[in-house]
Amino acid sequence: MNMTHEFLELETPCLLLDLARLEQNIARFTAIAVKHGVVLRPHLKTLKSIDAARLVVGEGGPITVSTLAEAEHFAAAGFRDILYAVGIAPGKLSRAKRLASSGVDLKLLTDSTSVAHSAAGLGLEFLIEIDCGDKRGGLPVESPHLLAVANAISDGGNTVAGVLTHAGHSYGTDDLTEIKKIAEVERASAVAAAVRLRSAGYSAPTVSIGSTPTVAFGESFEGVTELRAGVFMPFDLDQMSRGVCSYDDLALSVLTTVIGHNREAGRVLVDAGGLALSKDISAHGFLPGAGYGHVVDAETVAPLGLVVDAVSQEHGKIDVADNIWFERLPVGKQVRVFPNHACFTAAAYPGYHIIENGHLTGQWKRVNGW
Amino acid sequence: MNMTHEFLELETPCLLLDLARLEQNIARFTAIAVKHGVVLRPHLKTLKSIDAARLVVGEGGPITVSTLAEAEHFAAAGFRDILYAVGIAPGKLSRAKRLASSGVDLKLLTDSTSVAHSAAGLGLEFLIEIDCGDKRGGLPVESPHLLAVANAISDGGNTVAGVLTHAGHSYGTDDLTEIKKIAEVERASAVAAAVRLRSAGYSAPTVSIGSTPTVAFGESFEGVTELRAGVFMPFDLDQMSRGVCSYDDLALSVLTTVIGHNREAGRVLVDAGGLALSKDISAHGFLPGAGYGHVVDAETVAPLGLVVDAVSQEHGKIDVADNIWFERLPVGKQVRVFPNHACFTAAAYPGYHIIENGHLTGQWKRVNGW
Repeated sequence: MNMTHEFLELETPCLLLDLARLEQNIARFTAIAVKHGVVLRPHLKTLKSIDAARLVVGEGGPITVSTLAEAEHFAAAGFRDILYAVGIAPGKLSRAKRLASSGVDLKLLTDSTSVAHSAAGLGLEFLIEIDCGDKRGGLPVESPHLLAVANAISDGGNTVAGVLTHAGHSYGTDDLTEIKKIAEVERASAVAAAVRLRSAGYSAPTVSIGSTPTVAFGESFEGVTELRAGVFMPFDLDQMSRGVCSYDDLALSVLTTVIGHNREAGRVLVDAGGLALSKDISAHGFLPGAGYGHVVDAETVAPLGLVVDAVSQEHGKIDVADNIWFERLPVGKQVRVFPNHACFTAAAYPGYHIIENGHLTGQWKRVNGW
Repeated sequence: MNMTHEFLELETPCLLLDLARLEQNIARFTAIAVKHGVVLRPHLKTLKSIDAARLVVGEGGPITVSTLAEAEHFAAAGFRDILYAVGIAPGKLSRAKRLASSGVDLKLLTDSTSVAHSAAGLGLEFLIEIDCGDKRGGLPVESPHLLAVANAISDGGNTVAGVLTHAGHSYGTDDLTEIKKIAEVERASAVAAAVRLRSAGYSAPTVSIGSTPTVAFGESFEGVTELRAGVFMPFDLDQMSRGVCSYDDLALSVLTTVIGHNREAGRVLVDAGGLALSKDISAHGFLPGAGYGHVVDAETVAPLGLVVDAVSQEHGKIDVADNIWFERLPVGKQVRVFPNHACFTAAAYPGYHIIENGHLTGQWKRVNGW
């Protein structure tokens, strides 16, 4: 096995995606959904790849997306069951309508009577967003506005397809007991909101919950119909730092090349800087010293005990305490970096180089932008 | 003037670039170069736009780029004098050679004998990188390796075109006296290195220095042949926080739409999140509380006294202390955000919507990736 030779043909920085690890992560989350008898509707906001989506749900869906550009991209590839899980702006309704009219079963999200009024006559499906503690989008479960939003959707000839909540605050702890508590609040909030809607006469069949930590560790999904999670596919240091995955689960890395040594400053410079790694340092909350990513051997992914300590736009700066590193990491040498947050790092690239059994076997494209 | 109407036709989030402000910033930096009799070689790493480059240097160059993808993009548009100002990896030499062979006067950068050896026989031009205190790439002025690198370049049949240094550490202060000191060290370091090379028999004609703060405030560029700066074109909160520009110079903003209200959490949500704004918060060092950008009126760019306090991937979270903001910023309303760091924010987009005299007058493309 001489991976290094193959990697040397790649332009760095670039993304490597380990297919076996990706499949193992998908199998783990698929098993959770199967065990609980709930649909897994993977969030493609992380990998934004048709190939990755097909690995989870086959052809057609169901999937979750974070932009209408993603929705259109997946629809063009035959996905027909798509949830756009960000509160829709009124100005985006006509674009969504075009997509729905093309034969896509498109679910939109709102918590706003104003959006519902703007959508009057479009014949669209809406989930109503519930805030289960994340303090982002959504109404509290007991909000008096919940039924007003449902009425506004329904009065406009649109469908109240159910409720959605996202326990994004589950990222705020690495305490398993706490994550389980948050997962239960997430579940109970969504179910209670659906019950309120049903009591008011709406069928509201969908109860959509999910974040990678709460899907991983939730103990009950009673009453829930679908689980959304996305970063579980490649995982990253951020999730590892919360105990959601292990080092051996990390499927996404940045391949980078040593471009210089600053011996006086004790630094090895690589060509993965702030654009290639992103400036997301979200792992730091529970993994201080993670820098802009962990540096590992390009071939074996063995940790080198180094991190990218600082970045400028096109430079990654690896501080080394011992001059031996200038010999171990000569100019031209490739290393890999496991990033803090896969969703942000991947966004700088047009796609992935796929690794299977230690060899490059293909490329997958991503869709970026809006 | 009803800009809002035109803006409502745009898909948000998107980038707006104010042409009058851009031209004013370019005029300011062009005047500095003219005053000192030095060439302005603008760094296109920020805007990565052919149209922007032509505004500064007309057709053909000289320009600075941060990736070979940029070099190729600008070369395809007729630019013939291109400096790739990041230390080149040996694996990129063949790609650079192809570009040089296509008729581009391409200058490369290194501080490594190893790179110089790898380039043997390619007939390329190299600047030698000098570290004037930034602790990124480069040799100290007095380094015994300076002549070794020059010899390795020359022995391999390549050209020692001169020296380059970058006072990136000028971003580390908002003290004008300190910036001027750093500018003088930057100048003196580059000139001294060139003198050493010339004393050793190399013509080393180019003495390239620059960062936006040191170009803005340097008092002497004696001995320097060219100034590199890039972020000066659009400017950003980061530069403003260091006193390099004023609020009225900010040419780049993100147009975003209100997508929800979380009244319980006291938050207005917009569709510019961490991907649309970037996670760069570099203005914070000297502008605490800048969040992920300043929120301004979409039409007048009057500051609203609000910032994007937090982001998730596709959500910007604007904390509001008064419920009046839920009326002032209804769902569907557009606002603009002046970002922390233009180089990072712009990288998420395929291009810019140009504003002239308050109207949308065109679109400029960017080149992203590597």
